[in-house]
Amino acid sequence: MANSKYEYVREFEQTDLLLPNTWIVVRIDGRGFHKLSTKYAFEKPNDRSALDLMNAAAVSVMKEFPDVILGYGDSDEYSFIFHKSTSLFQRRASKLSTTITSTFTAHYVYLWPTYFPMKPLSPPLPSFDGRCVLYPTTKDLRNYLAWRQADCHINNLYNTIFHTLVLRGNLSPQEAEAALSTTTASAKNEMLFQGFGINYNNEPEMYRKGSVVYRAYELAPVGVPVSGNLNPDDDDGAERASLSKTAAEKEKKIRSKARIAVEHVDIIKDDFWERRPWILSGKSGILPPTSEDAMMT
Amino acid sequence: MANSKYEYVREFEQTDLLLPNTWIVVRIDGRGFHKLSTKYAFEKPNDRSALDLMNAAAVSVMKEFPDVILGYGDSDEYSFIFHKSTSLFQRRASKLSTTITSTFTAHYVYLWPTYFPMKPLSPPLPSFDGRCVLYPTTKDLRNYLAWRQADCHINNLYNTIFHTLVLRGNLSPQEAEAALSTTTASAKNEMLFQGFGINYNNEPEMYRKGSVVYRAYELAPVGVPVSGNLNPDDDDGAERASLSKTAAEKEKKIRSKARIAVEHVDIIKDDFWERRPWILSGKSGILPPTSEDAMMT
Amino acid sequence: MANSKYEYVREFEQTDLLLPNTWIVVRIDGRGFHKLSTKYAFEKPNDRSALDLMNAAAVSVMKEFPDVILGYGDSDEYSFIFHKSTSLFQRRASKLSTTITSTFTAHYVYLWPTYFPMKPLSPPLPSFDGRCVLYPTTKDLRNYLAWRQADCHINNLYNTIFHTLVLRGNLSPQEAEAALSTTTASAKNEMLFQGFGINYNNEPEMYRKGSVVYRAYELAPVGVPVSGNLNPDDDDGAERASLSKTAAEKEKKIRSKARIAVEHVDIIKDDFWERRPWILSGKSGILPPTSEDAMMT
Amino acid sequence: MANSKYEYVREFEQTDLLLPNTWIVVRIDGRGFHKLSTKYAFEKPNDRSALDLMNAAAVSVMKEFPDVILGYGDSDEYSFIFHKSTSLFQRRASKLSTTITSTFTAHYVYLWPTYFPMKPLSPPLPSFDGRCVLYPTTKDLRNYLAWRQADCHINNLYNTIFHTLVLRGNLSPQEAEAALSTTTASAKNEMLFQGFGINYNNEPEMYRKGSVVYRAYELAPVGVPVSGNLNPDDDDGAERASLSKTAAEKEKKIRSKARIAVEHVDIIKDDFWERRPWILSGKSGILPPTSEDAMMT
Repeated sequence: MANSKYEYVREFEQTDLLLPNTWIVVRIDGRGFHKLSTKYAFEKPNDRSALDLMNAAAVSVMKEFPDVILGYGDSDEYSFIFHKSTSLFQRRASKLSTTITSTFTAHYVYLWPTYFPMKPLSPPLPSFDGRCVLYPTTKDLRNYLAWRQADCHINNLYNTIFHTLVLRGNLSPQEAEAALSTTTASAKNEMLFQGFGINYNNEPEMYRKGSVVYRAYELAPVGVPVSGNLNPDDDDGAERASLSKTAAEKEKKIRSKARIAVEHVDIIKDDFWERRPWILSGKSGILPPTSEDAMMT
Repeated sequence: MANSKYEYVREFEQTDLLLPNTWIVVRIDGRGFHKLSTKYAFEKPNDRSALDLMNAAAVSVMKEFPDVILGYGDSDEYSFIFHKSTSLFQRRASKLSTTITSTFTAHYVYLWPTYFPMKPLSPPLPSFDGRCVLYPTTKDLRNYLAWRQADCHINNLYNTIFHTLVLRGNLSPQEAEAALSTTTASAKNEMLFQGFGINYNNEPEMYRKGSVVYRAYELAPVGVPVSGNLNPDDDDGAERASLSKTAAEKEKKIRSKARIAVEHVDIIKDDFWERRPWILSGKSGILPPTSEDAMMT
Repeated sequence: MANSKYEYVREFEQTDLLLPNTWIVVRIDGRGFHKLSTKYAFEKPNDRSALDLMNAAAVSVMKEFPDVILGYGDSDEYSFIFHKSTSLFQRRASKLSTTITSTFTAHYVYLWPTYFPMKPLSPPLPSFDGRCVLYPTTKDLRNYLAWRQADCHINNLYNTIFHTLVLRGNLSPQEAEAALSTTTASAKNEMLFQGFGINYNNEPEMYRKGSVVYRAYELAPVGVPVSGNLNPDDDDGAERASLSKTAAEKEKKIRSKARIAVEHVDIIKDDFWERRPWILSGKSGILPPTSEDAMMT
Repeated sequence: MANSKYEYVREFEQTDLLLPNTWIVVRIDGRGFHKLSTKYAFEKPNDRSALDLMNAAAVSVMKEFPDVILGYGDSDEYSFIFHKSTSLFQRRASKLSTTITSTFTAHYVYLWPTYFPMKPLSPPLPSFDGRCVLYPTTKDLRNYLAWRQADCHINNLYNTIFHTLVLRGNLSPQEAEAALSTTTASAKNEMLFQGFGINYNNEPEMYRKGSVVYRAYELAPVGVPVSGNLNPDDDDGAERASLSKTAAEKEKKIRSKARIAVEHVDIIKDDFWERRPWILSGKSGILPPTSEDAMMT
């Protein structure tokens, strides 16, 4: 049973290396989570435990993959960002997308009983699909993240009022949908406030802004733009690979020591990025002096 | 926070539709399973529970995806075959590979306690990577599967004697490796038999042949080649899409009723395929008359 | 001025190897030939010299590339077929498409004065674009060619009656278009015959069927289907590459001796392929005994 | 002969849209130009007419494609740069590469008699292959061009001394090759000067630096870095497409009026780019006041 006769089939495997020096987003989406949310009676419009579980799985992904510099999630989706200089898996698209999706799934299923102790899983199990998207410039990458966060806001505002109309306003889902079909954002805010005394801006930030996960180092001072870090597109590509092996190991070690922060903050404006210049620079920052971080995740 | 300003980032998503009328293999591989097998003290050269768990996860994939016509696995890898006529996810490569990998992972983690009740999981968790490979002809597809099964045999023969030399022959791993480095298959068989009284052919078929999972219908009679089904490459492409929606629904229903068989048989020779013509034809076979199948998986 | 500093830019070149064992079509199309046909006053609906020039360029492509097994052209487009076993340029998509397009263009421009001695070229010059399309089975490939030939027929019937209505029926182009907008093929035939005494079937075959170019060997007898050659999809992929270097050289030599035939025949039905089994088999046929072929192209 | 039966074959055409907001290089290379240079007795190491012909064809490409912002060529190759914001042919890779290659070929063949009046072409004709390469940042793009120009220098220095050793030093080609195999650049310069009185730096710039083709507008003043134009990577992607149709038409018109300059200058250092900020900005510059440009190409 010599194998050489069949080896030729390997030639059918096609390479899928992603363009160098380009930001890589791996975005994963829950499969059939609408059905899943019914099966496990998720609270509407937001189920705190379900979102916490998503975030916990995302933190685990960050821990297993030091090359991931940031994650952003809302609802049943999560985007993981690889620095444009990453050479993880030689930048093979399918390897990157399947590995991240699989790792996220493993932790989601594994942590489920922690977040839903009274709701044991049964098949069909929660699962995710994923894909790689490339962004050549930092601006494009930030606009991608802005797109997701703006989308989170728009959906959450809609869902909040929709479910309020149904649960407290006694409208049928169809009536609620009709009532909202042509309403502007400000009109929606007004409906919430006038009709139900709800100030949308007081809703939890987690629901309104989604969740950002990243390695927490010492923040840079307020109001000091660090242009080099905010626009690293001008890096000399020729020098990108120059990080020595020792330096790379040291870098990896620092990253593994950093606490993974989970925050619900604005990532559309510059402030978030200016105070955390290490995220876009792809280099680790300064670990906080205290050792409290050990207890933080 | 209008989103239209950012919507342009969607243009960066690139399509990855797989060539129509071509067999799709999604092969998944365990990530770092060498380390994992040490952490959880898998038996060497084969851990029955670990293989059973792989097969159970594969059966779950088959149940959730009626479009998968066959799975073949050994060690920490599994190949899932989609019929060349499948239009699942519009044949998007990343969607297919990530979904299969995620679903397999979910079941692997979920079922772990069933197969390893005394060995609770802890992070880093088991995970898998995956990829799509295309094969234009049935011959190429069967040669792919032959390649994997021949590989299983070669690896298992090597591992069997290697671990026998170490565990019973008191050789160091280095000595065992050296002893095997230039040995032919027949010499290996001889070493096992002369030195340890082991007839390799009596080793469990699961270890020597790997595992095949497929929907079990009534077998065709022995020795009757069903050429049309064994070589469907000549199908008129123009008629491929002609299955009516009702027919497709009916087809799906029959598939969901079929028992998923897990067998350890030769898939290199023709016999397996001739007696199960439905696998390559992409059409379901005849459900067995008895209702015992209900208890079989 | 050491170059090593810049060499890294080569990593941005991405591989584009086409799937093995799959038919490759390179289809080229004239760019802006509508305008070109006005500039050089091509006869409507068909300009014999323009079509002859296309065919002459196609014959030159066949001569320079023994790996091309067939060309089919009509109007300002040409499709060149590479056998599914070809390894020309390692099956690199961009290399195949640009080389064929460039070679065709070179001969088109070079031969222009031969076919249009009174109409010297001036910029902007005629040019072509091109692309690779893959077909996994022989059936799909033949259906592709049938699609092109049926398209030739449909367009030519339309153009023939359109220009007859304008030139002889004194309709304006708009009126002619309106008259034809909802007409069936048979009604068009009728209009031609009743209105202008033109029997469409007597129009030149070159216009109705397009042009087929291929290497001419001895024809197989009529009515003897050569299934192996008509459906080579069942070839054992494992043996594809087995042609020895000497055999490959010999094969190439025979091909270079073969006359390139230019014919206007039906390639939708089986007859064309059954009598020329060498085309789909990818192996050369028997050179005709006479030496008349020397004078034939 | 309805065509609908065959239309399904169009589904096999795969999209190949290039990543948005990324510089596109189409590099074409002469096919078999070593043989060609022998056939037509090109002068060694550089044939002035052959290079002039390459440049003339490149100028024609620039004229037909206002979207090409720069061309750089040496020997038998030419690189054409599309601005990262181009949407020509929807950024389809095969369309871009084949069209540029075909247009270049057409002009090369068409202009041949002008540059080689005494050497009529005969088949096999000159032809080119081509490919698209993407560069995400301006730095990468400039490093690509630097790579080609450094390569031109290295090759030309080598060829100059090689042919001097053969033609004037009476060495055999093998001896010359051996003499050069381990020589540094400065040693080569020395050999030329000491042995043959040739100061390499006095060789024509066309041979040492290759040829740059671009649209000539009014130069910016010396020494004024125009950072925005030199590093347009920070452009807001969201606003890229905002050029109105009228503005785009106007832009196209200005470009068509600009003279195409052919120069042999350093494009590795910043000066070239700083004085011609329109090249990387993708916006046209100011047309020179005089009308002499009409006579310049």
